[in-house]
Amino acid sequence: MSKSDKDNGEKNQMWGGRFAEGPAAVMEAINVSIDVDRRLWREDIEGSRAHAAMLARQGIISPADAEAIARGLDRIAQEIESGAFPFSRKLEDIHLNIEARLKELIGEPAARLHAARSRNDQVATDFRLWVRRACDDAAAGLKALQAALLDKAETHAATVMPGYTHLQTAQPVTFGHHCLAYVEMFARDRGRFADARRRLNECPLGAAALAGTSFPIDRDATAGALGFDRPMANSLDAVSARDFALEALSAAAICAGHLSRLAEEIVLWTSPHFGFAKLSDAFSTGSSIMPQKKNPDAAELARAKTGRVTGALVSLLTVMKALPLAYSKDMQEDKAVTFQAFDDLALALAALAGMVADMTMDEARMRAAAGWGFSTATDLADWLVRTLDMPFREAHHVAGRIVALAERKGLTLDRLALEDMRAVEPRITEAVYSVLSVDASVASRTSYGGTAPDNVRAQVARWRDRLSQEKAP
Amino acid sequence: MSKSDKDNGEKNQMWGGRFAEGPAAVMEAINVSIDVDRRLWREDIEGSRAHAAMLARQGIISPADAEAIARGLDRIAQEIESGAFPFSRKLEDIHLNIEARLKELIGEPAARLHAARSRNDQVATDFRLWVRRACDDAAAGLKALQAALLDKAETHAATVMPGYTHLQTAQPVTFGHHCLAYVEMFARDRGRFADARRRLNECPLGAAALAGTSFPIDRDATAGALGFDRPMANSLDAVSARDFALEALSAAAICAGHLSRLAEEIVLWTSPHFGFAKLSDAFSTGSSIMPQKKNPDAAELARAKTGRVTGALVSLLTVMKALPLAYSKDMQEDKAVTFQAFDDLALALAALAGMVADMTMDEARMRAAAGWGFSTATDLADWLVRTLDMPFREAHHVAGRIVALAERKGLTLDRLALEDMRAVEPRITEAVYSVLSVDASVASRTSYGGTAPDNVRAQVARWRDRLSQEKAP
Amino acid sequence: MSKSDKDNGEKNQMWGGRFAEGPAAVMEAINVSIDVDRRLWREDIEGSRAHAAMLARQGIISPADAEAIARGLDRIAQEIESGAFPFSRKLEDIHLNIEARLKELIGEPAARLHAARSRNDQVATDFRLWVRRACDDAAAGLKALQAALLDKAETHAATVMPGYTHLQTAQPVTFGHHCLAYVEMFARDRGRFADARRRLNECPLGAAALAGTSFPIDRDATAGALGFDRPMANSLDAVSARDFALEALSAAAICAGHLSRLAEEIVLWTSPHFGFAKLSDAFSTGSSIMPQKKNPDAAELARAKTGRVTGALVSLLTVMKALPLAYSKDMQEDKAVTFQAFDDLALALAALAGMVADMTMDEARMRAAAGWGFSTATDLADWLVRTLDMPFREAHHVAGRIVALAERKGLTLDRLALEDMRAVEPRITEAVYSVLSVDASVASRTSYGGTAPDNVRAQVARWRDRLSQEKAP
Amino acid sequence: MSKSDKDNGEKNQMWGGRFAEGPAAVMEAINVSIDVDRRLWREDIEGSRAHAAMLARQGIISPADAEAIARGLDRIAQEIESGAFPFSRKLEDIHLNIEARLKELIGEPAARLHAARSRNDQVATDFRLWVRRACDDAAAGLKALQAALLDKAETHAATVMPGYTHLQTAQPVTFGHHCLAYVEMFARDRGRFADARRRLNECPLGAAALAGTSFPIDRDATAGALGFDRPMANSLDAVSARDFALEALSAAAICAGHLSRLAEEIVLWTSPHFGFAKLSDAFSTGSSIMPQKKNPDAAELARAKTGRVTGALVSLLTVMKALPLAYSKDMQEDKAVTFQAFDDLALALAALAGMVADMTMDEARMRAAAGWGFSTATDLADWLVRTLDMPFREAHHVAGRIVALAERKGLTLDRLALEDMRAVEPRITEAVYSVLSVDASVASRTSYGGTAPDNVRAQVARWRDRLSQEKAP
Repeated sequence: MSKSDKDNGEKNQMWGGRFAEGPAAVMEAINVSIDVDRRLWREDIEGSRAHAAMLARQGIISPADAEAIARGLDRIAQEIESGAFPFSRKLEDIHLNIEARLKELIGEPAARLHAARSRNDQVATDFRLWVRRACDDAAAGLKALQAALLDKAETHAATVMPGYTHLQTAQPVTFGHHCLAYVEMFARDRGRFADARRRLNECPLGAAALAGTSFPIDRDATAGALGFDRPMANSLDAVSARDFALEALSAAAICAGHLSRLAEEIVLWTSPHFGFAKLSDAFSTGSSIMPQKKNPDAAELARAKTGRVTGALVSLLTVMKALPLAYSKDMQEDKAVTFQAFDDLALALAALAGMVADMTMDEARMRAAAGWGFSTATDLADWLVRTLDMPFREAHHVAGRIVALAERKGLTLDRLALEDMRAVEPRITEAVYSVLSVDASVASRTSYGGTAPDNVRAQVARWRDRLSQEKAP
Repeated sequence: MSKSDKDNGEKNQMWGGRFAEGPAAVMEAINVSIDVDRRLWREDIEGSRAHAAMLARQGIISPADAEAIARGLDRIAQEIESGAFPFSRKLEDIHLNIEARLKELIGEPAARLHAARSRNDQVATDFRLWVRRACDDAAAGLKALQAALLDKAETHAATVMPGYTHLQTAQPVTFGHHCLAYVEMFARDRGRFADARRRLNECPLGAAALAGTSFPIDRDATAGALGFDRPMANSLDAVSARDFALEALSAAAICAGHLSRLAEEIVLWTSPHFGFAKLSDAFSTGSSIMPQKKNPDAAELARAKTGRVTGALVSLLTVMKALPLAYSKDMQEDKAVTFQAFDDLALALAALAGMVADMTMDEARMRAAAGWGFSTATDLADWLVRTLDMPFREAHHVAGRIVALAERKGLTLDRLALEDMRAVEPRITEAVYSVLSVDASVASRTSYGGTAPDNVRAQVARWRDRLSQEKAP
Repeated sequence: MSKSDKDNGEKNQMWGGRFAEGPAAVMEAINVSIDVDRRLWREDIEGSRAHAAMLARQGIISPADAEAIARGLDRIAQEIESGAFPFSRKLEDIHLNIEARLKELIGEPAARLHAARSRNDQVATDFRLWVRRACDDAAAGLKALQAALLDKAETHAATVMPGYTHLQTAQPVTFGHHCLAYVEMFARDRGRFADARRRLNECPLGAAALAGTSFPIDRDATAGALGFDRPMANSLDAVSARDFALEALSAAAICAGHLSRLAEEIVLWTSPHFGFAKLSDAFSTGSSIMPQKKNPDAAELARAKTGRVTGALVSLLTVMKALPLAYSKDMQEDKAVTFQAFDDLALALAALAGMVADMTMDEARMRAAAGWGFSTATDLADWLVRTLDMPFREAHHVAGRIVALAERKGLTLDRLALEDMRAVEPRITEAVYSVLSVDASVASRTSYGGTAPDNVRAQVARWRDRLSQEKAP
Repeated sequence: MSKSDKDNGEKNQMWGGRFAEGPAAVMEAINVSIDVDRRLWREDIEGSRAHAAMLARQGIISPADAEAIARGLDRIAQEIESGAFPFSRKLEDIHLNIEARLKELIGEPAARLHAARSRNDQVATDFRLWVRRACDDAAAGLKALQAALLDKAETHAATVMPGYTHLQTAQPVTFGHHCLAYVEMFARDRGRFADARRRLNECPLGAAALAGTSFPIDRDATAGALGFDRPMANSLDAVSARDFALEALSAAAICAGHLSRLAEEIVLWTSPHFGFAKLSDAFSTGSSIMPQKKNPDAAELARAKTGRVTGALVSLLTVMKALPLAYSKDMQEDKAVTFQAFDDLALALAALAGMVADMTMDEARMRAAAGWGFSTATDLADWLVRTLDMPFREAHHVAGRIVALAERKGLTLDRLALEDMRAVEPRITEAVYSVLSVDASVASRTSYGGTAPDNVRAQVARWRDRLSQEKAP
């Protein structure tokens, strides 16, 4: 070992501002996690309860010690809930805060709690429990949003609106059908949270620092007590893995993306250019100067949350990149981003469920817009194929020429005279008008998954049935 | 409509370089997708075959037309496979390239194929089929990597190496146990791909442009013919959804993260500072000047792939943000990033499977390093708890004092004299030495999931059994 | 060294599909970069020319050898440009491809070119040269887009349109002013590319593998010959740094974000709900069936490019995370993402410049929409402050009450009777009408940076002047 | 307007948990920003001071009112600093909190402050001021880190260590040279912050809601008072732009990437496998059981911060994607991520500066490792070129054969007998030994930027000079 590189006296020059106290202040600021991980207090206490009970059952600690520990933990839970618990930054994290308080409360038995356990498996257990509940909460929020959409879909099973491609009017659809598209997306989002929950539901406790333990522990017991399906099968993996959080964050980011699409549509629909929807004061902010102005702030904020959730996912993917096994301190950065992302997601879900329930639709404006742009031209082409046995691409071409004619005359398709159509294709008959209105168009789309009002009603019924049969996770 | 804002003559000044031809060149460059989506040719032909057969069964086209279409598609498939197919950028994408060629080959019946279908549901179907296979391929690549790791785990069930926290020696583990940690991670990765595959396996075909169709199609038939579990239930969702690709990319990004951890370890293990592993020439690049130098290029490149896959995920999350329903052209950007990410993942999987199989471990160096840093101090503490009924935190403290003594004497724990230990804690007996060697340490970690050689062998057997019983997806 | 872990015979089982040939195929696939880095051929040849000339001037190689090398490199440049150059994957990368061909062409002198140089400093030099030009090209593309916007701003200096907050009408603005907002953004984007270019413009050549060299090279000479401002000051940094690419990608991502905002607006403006703008056929895709439909595909694709460029930035940030010095093979992944991002950016820039020039604005619809929603209520409040010395918050409140009254009566503010206003605030006079029309409103916003037509014209003049005085980079 | 879609009674079912109170609770939770933006209180007060003074000077408010406002703002600043200020969530944000308190304190004049201003330009101004200071703080943190590295570089100008490629020993370098590589990187990082600062230093104040104002304001005056270089030239741009935050976040992300590389090296150097560096207790966490264990937690956490900062950048890039002008509420999400990223960066900078100053290097271990792996083989090849005029590629080949011979004999190059070398190349002389030691190797790399100790000392002097001449921003 060589000469001392730097004497301590000089060092303090480099610290300024909030780190004026030098290394200690920096280390505390970067190392201490209690401000973030105190949110894990419930999970930490649950885990300790299960561990203590198991230690006693296995004869590793005495029943009396286990009893004292359980009582102490109850007391700590009460203290935290009531706000009386003295959190200390000197004690770094939630585990040491609780451990220290337990020692104050019950003395020596507290020291026996930590056999066959380390902070590495403890925090992995706590965090899995937290993410598990976050997945359940997200699923519940999605279900509430689905319910709000189903109400709207039922009310508007036959409400006609424009279907868009490229934000240009393409074909008429029903608003109920549009709402159901989101019900489908959110069902898949729920599926992703359910899968993430199922896959993460293995218990790290008992992995100890990284290698397992020589104590005769019963990992099935602690896993069962905490609602896990089984203990994790490899101790190194148990303390090193954070893919459970990444998977939950991925599900959240994809879900937030879906929410951003719905939020964007609400912003469009409530803009004066569309005028399809109105939000009540409850879900918009007004302007004291322009009383009719209702800004869809909640929709915009929900749309923005997709940025934060994506950012959280990228953060943790980057943090975990290329970390060798087993535990590295980098992994302490898993919690803040996950907490933030699920807070953001919960807010966006609640805000959108509220807005969907709250929106009043302007059916007249939606119907009027549905007819813009010769939106039933495809119906005309389909009629030509069905009735005249024209090949589709040719029918498409004929319909195009008729639309061009209608445009030159400034008429919608259903107002164009039969002789005009016959000038393009002589075989067209009066019967063609039965497909040219927007109502006829949507009514005809009865293929499975199509926009016809009856389809919408059937899907609403199917979904109500499915949601009512679900159990809470 | 107001005055013409700009005359065409002036416009050409702004185009230079490769866009010198003006708007046409720009539009072709930004709009044409055939260079990317030609990879979907198989899926596109499969989809058209299924659609034509269904149209004929439903009486929408004649059996003869269906027959002609089927023959034409077979011919096109042969042409593409043989390299004879004349891909054209003028025809924009794979769908129009195949459609145009079909018309050349069979004439009018080709025009009948497009009834009850649009490019919107067609491309959604093609891309789902591609992603489905990509998920299967990734799962297969993971299985091969698991198999390579299981071989190594079996060979090295009792090979002792250091277990690290913070890249500092913490406790001895077995190399077999270390390999099995990755087997667990990759099993979860496979689970994610399997879930993604299952969730995406619904058929968009028949959603048409966005609203469904009035033709009496049979969507169950096309779904079944293409191996989908069912048709998608909402036509707007069918053409708008890309969460299937995002979920597959998420699974890929999380998996790439796992690969980056293994790759990092191979880089460390093959560095002269560790010297735990050697790669053969097949998986390293040499230096003509330093013959002993074997650079772990393949590991570094596999590590880097996590960046590209994460980037692909972020790309598509960003592209999809806030797109209103139904189809927007933005979604054309889904394919290039997905193709790239799965190409990268496949490479990284193959490279790591190869390296794992190829590595030769230096057991002597691993064992020596396992003993550094008083790595059995926890075993000493556990012995004190078990044998003397000392509370764990007190045992921890006593062990620390003994280690400090050993350090001052320059001895490892298993060489420290009994009287020295007794000076710290008089109740210690000769029996303590049974837990102080690295072999004794790993052998004692028999808790479920622990690192003991017998545990490793049991897990290898369990995994071999499980892998052998799996069927291909 | 321990037993051989695996015999070669067994290995081949794990390779399937395109890696059926085993390790060699995998290694080639993951290791070979020629498919990507062949784009650096110009830069590689430039760098070799400069290096050879310097070696000769310093007496490290003979003038005759330098001459032979120069001739050989010229020949190679011709071969590549004409498509005759035989690129070989066996030779891995662009450097070895050119080196091997040079040896074929000129024999022994080729072997002298590589004194005092390695692939590490060579590729760093090539890539810096490429990124430097990419920054210049992006700046040029931005300048063309600014020019198109200035033309529009001049034409529409007094064209009134709605100014939005929350996509709700807020206050009238001029379209020229709106265009100028983008001119400002793109000026800052150009500034970022200029700064990135300036900062990267130091030459790595001569850093050799990583430590510099003992040959008496003249790094100022090679730096100068290649247009660099100076040689890099630290050889380890020279071969390890990729922040120059990250900075260029950051500038590209921020710029792509600006483009996505303009693209979004074009999508909105061309939708039938806004109807503010029409694109010609050159910049939209039509529908054969709905002739009036003009999909703004190019705008949507330009909007989507922000996803790809952001993804590229994330890719390289992730790749570079935590790489120890000096060169790691991970860094080979720098080029593909950078090439892709700048290709995407160039396309988006060209497409948007084209669309801006191409758009025809519907002034009547813009003006009509500008008057929606009592957009001059703020003008009324300001008048109250100015004329009646009312505190602003009180004026705001009075204006709100007058707007509420107008809304109840179904009138715009400039049609509301004076007595109605006086019922709210008796001191209001006839003069108030001078501020209540949208034209009066925009004309009054003459504060620096405000939307008044005269301001717009002054800014257009200022920008034209500034752009015309710029030199090419 | 159609039927009311939903009656209020039903709505409350969907709210549970923390939103039990229904819409109001959701809206407060998603809309209120005071918990985040209270950090802008200084900037907000500064901005109001400048605005009030300008209004008075322009005769828009009276001197007495301006005086009252100034006194009120002083009082509020004191209240906030002392913790006495009653922040209220009902008042949403920092602007309204201060505005309301000002009204309480001074009455009517408070209402006059808001002429010619809106929250849109106010928050843009506040946030620019904050980001400006954050850039300055980051630059100062970087300078302290550079100073710590320069101290180490000076001390270790001649300390030999291995230079790595692929984490394999490549050539010897000096540790001082290695430190200077980071000094260069951090200088570029500082340059990026300086450029971001310079580019953002334009004042949005006076843009009002979005269109400018009809009040005769003096924007140069407010810009000057707040230390801005000039007012922003376009009011729409002024309230819509957030590229200044994105640029600062990009600089932060690139810088965090550099920090992650240094942090990774500290983790490696302090691992027992390298043993190059020791951290004192101040910058490591110990183990009560293994007293010699010093975990480099601070380095790991600093390494992890690159994930959080990258995530913040991605968040805001995603939030801003495709937002139409001018203000959208999405932009409220700009602050939380920016605050977090700069907090993280400040911590990482301080921690690394501390660790660099704190590290004690083990010169003996570094020197020993520098000689591993025939690291002077390149020196041998260079000698052959220089002395025997051998073409470099041939010299490279000859050196390789000599190394292979040395390896077979188990000798380092400087111990291999002359006749052994002559067996490969007869022209080699005794003089060759002068280049074969690691000290000779580093001493010979005197090319500009090379690793020779004299070069290191010259660069240290240059840098010290440069840093000492800098002024604070």
